[in-house]
Amino acid sequence: MENIFTDEYFMKKALQEAEMAFEKGEIPVGAVVVIDNKVIAKSHNLTEVLNDVTAHAEMQSITAAANFLGGKYLKNCTLYVTLEPCQMCAGALYWSQISKIVFGARDEQRGFLTLGTSLHPKTQVVEGVLASECGTLMKAFFASKRK
Amino acid sequence: MENIFTDEYFMKKALQEAEMAFEKGEIPVGAVVVIDNKVIAKSHNLTEVLNDVTAHAEMQSITAAANFLGGKYLKNCTLYVTLEPCQMCAGALYWSQISKIVFGARDEQRGFLTLGTSLHPKTQVVEGVLASECGTLMKAFFASKRK
Repeated sequence: MENIFTDEYFMKKALQEAEMAFEKGEIPVGAVVVIDNKVIAKSHNLTEVLNDVTAHAEMQSITAAANFLGGKYLKNCTLYVTLEPCQMCAGALYWSQISKIVFGARDEQRGFLTLGTSLHPKTQVVEGVLASECGTLMKAFFASKRK
Repeated sequence: MENIFTDEYFMKKALQEAEMAFEKGEIPVGAVVVIDNKVIAKSHNLTEVLNDVTAHAEMQSITAAANFLGGKYLKNCTLYVTLEPCQMCAGALYWSQISKIVFGARDEQRGFLTLGTSLHPKTQVVEGVLASECGTLMKAFFASKRK
């Protein structure tokens, strides 16, 4: 039987979250946290709605997943996020000891790979999953803002 | 007339917050945000109580100060924090465009200076204010945990 629970499958869920951010006028970034092929947290960027620079999709998903699990460490969890995490979110992911991070598009300016934020040694990183779709949504957002 | 509103004055407020964390069994870090010599946010580390790695003192103070100001940028604000901020908190402070960060003790392992997290170009950093008191509290906490 074919496994439907691929990285693309869960990145599509994150993309749906990013689209919800777009519709609210937020920079369109979405995230989900998955354990044993089950989504236990989903979120999208809410920095404008909440007037809070810390309300990135990843931060909300880390908090929600820990709440679901009843413990603050996200062992055996994977975060899917449409954009490369920033320093803040990568720093939070370090503390969470999350097992895996899968992201879509690169953020050449503020992404943690560019800026050298250190992750936990236990954390595996996969990049480029649905990168084109994730990046296109970002470009469409900034193009709409320039109008 | 002598100005009582020195960096030491406000760091003492942050230290009081750190002591509240200690009393709760949390790593004793406290923070306050000040604008025009007025404390607009105060917080202490609550990662254990809240089961949330993102609940560092600085993160809570950034959110609370933005809520008080009604806007997400902490221009003309100073954060006083007893310990050098980590990557996550420094990353959040970058996004907040805060004017000044004053910290007490260095964190040689996970501090943003050691790890090279980038702050906003507008942000000034002062270190070492009541460093001994702030560091002593941390050492007392970890000594008590080893017992």
